[in-house]
Amino acid sequence: MPLPLGFTGARLDRADQMRTNEAAFAAAIADPRATCLTLDGIDFVPGASGGLLWEPLDPADDRALMLLGIDDAGAPRFVREAAAGARVDARTRTVMRLLPLLSAEEAALYGGARSLVDWHARHRFCAVCGTPTDLFRGGWGRRCGACGAEHFPRVDPVVIMLAEFEDRVLVGRQGGFPPGFFSALAGFVEPGESLEEAVARELFEEAGIHVSDVSYVASQPWPFPSSLMIGCRAVAKDPALTLDTTEIEAAMWVDRAEVRAALASDMGAPFLAPPSLAIARYLLEDWAGL
Amino acid sequence: MPLPLGFTGARLDRADQMRTNEAAFAAAIADPRATCLTLDGIDFVPGASGGLLWEPLDPADDRALMLLGIDDAGAPRFVREAAAGARVDARTRTVMRLLPLLSAEEAALYGGARSLVDWHARHRFCAVCGTPTDLFRGGWGRRCGACGAEHFPRVDPVVIMLAEFEDRVLVGRQGGFPPGFFSALAGFVEPGESLEEAVARELFEEAGIHVSDVSYVASQPWPFPSSLMIGCRAVAKDPALTLDTTEIEAAMWVDRAEVRAALASDMGAPFLAPPSLAIARYLLEDWAGL
Repeated sequence: MPLPLGFTGARLDRADQMRTNEAAFAAAIADPRATCLTLDGIDFVPGASGGLLWEPLDPADDRALMLLGIDDAGAPRFVREAAAGARVDARTRTVMRLLPLLSAEEAALYGGARSLVDWHARHRFCAVCGTPTDLFRGGWGRRCGACGAEHFPRVDPVVIMLAEFEDRVLVGRQGGFPPGFFSALAGFVEPGESLEEAVARELFEEAGIHVSDVSYVASQPWPFPSSLMIGCRAVAKDPALTLDTTEIEAAMWVDRAEVRAALASDMGAPFLAPPSLAIARYLLEDWAGL
Repeated sequence: MPLPLGFTGARLDRADQMRTNEAAFAAAIADPRATCLTLDGIDFVPGASGGLLWEPLDPADDRALMLLGIDDAGAPRFVREAAAGARVDARTRTVMRLLPLLSAEEAALYGGARSLVDWHARHRFCAVCGTPTDLFRGGWGRRCGACGAEHFPRVDPVVIMLAEFEDRVLVGRQGGFPPGFFSALAGFVEPGESLEEAVARELFEEAGIHVSDVSYVASQPWPFPSSLMIGCRAVAKDPALTLDTTEIEAAMWVDRAEVRAALASDMGAPFLAPPSLAIARYLLEDWAGL
């Protein structure tokens, strides 16, 4: 069985009904068990034990509170809007190095909070009319006082897929990847297409292959900034590749023994496999029968 | 086999590489075979033969052109940005009545164009800084000249699912549905959750049931305004329902005979089934073995 998927497994009741209930929301803030996730911009700050840092609500902090949910013990968990002008991007490499400090459940909680805080920081103005907007629905939306438009956090679906031909699958690398690293091909789903159509389009655009028999494998949230990775397989009709070199620097067909060697970080492996938090690794493990 | 999924099956090469190639984009506009989809706001205008209306590019029209793609005959297909102030919403009932005029392929082309034009109309300002933005990437994005932020069309993933218990599935209705109409439950995927977690959360929030064994069935784009419907099944642990009556007016467990009667529009059916364009109908057909 593959490892659990990264950024999944948060054991928090999102308590949707409390978001729109002002009395319940105020009671959650006043709850003495309530805590707030401490962030630096949108990066987490390791606690004393190495995990996330949850602190009591500071009444002197006037940044808006967003309700992440209610934990197993009944305690409300919050996160605050980033301070105006806080740096909210470009630290992904740092956070990727820190993430192994977190348990799977903490990584999932952090990922959701990060996407939410990031979205607010980059959506302070109404896209319809340009007026500054206010947070509403307990932190799960913004509303424009001028035109009345309501805006909700983005979740951007991305298809990520292994094309198969006979007993091999296609892996590729972008120019910015570390040396030797290959992964599954991926791309954003566009308006007007199904997942299956997006898989076929991306594989044709990036690698020049036509596929059939697209099947779903698994999904994970990917908080950089707010993707929903939807992992699939597809069957290639012909293995000849025509790469879009603006997207893909190199791609190759690899067999199960090569995939297993890469996943085991063997010295002789033909490529370096994606890290354990990434669904691309899950797709490779699943295909290799691990 | 269920019917093909609504709004899928567009046979158009989206020609992503032409969006960012100014010379290729200009050549596509100058191509004498190029046509533009005629819209009224974001609704389609039926052509003489009942289908979509595609007209030659009008050089006197100064609204920005977006490249939908290249058709099988090599002809570029465009759509234009809506006029400033055009009404771009609230006509869904009208367009739902007109949609049966379109072939499956035309409905898919129209759905993608509608979502794109609608997104531009509601995103004329930069969400980061409030400045008016300009269309770029051949119509597949907007860029802010003030802060440099780039914005891309939204696709909002929605899970829509049949919970199963023994040999029955759960259907529900919202207050705004026409009398007697029931469908699959559904809800937006939120930041920080997988598809499987979203299915479990929505079924618990709306119907009070706990589920396991979530499986993927099919997907479709749903251009009202830009959802990606992801159809799933899940197995309920217990059939007792606790409805969130702010979301769901009524829900009930129905067996295969009842589902087949509803799909056949039988007089004695216990509910009216969703229309053929909706993935909810596909889920019911698939489950009923039709």
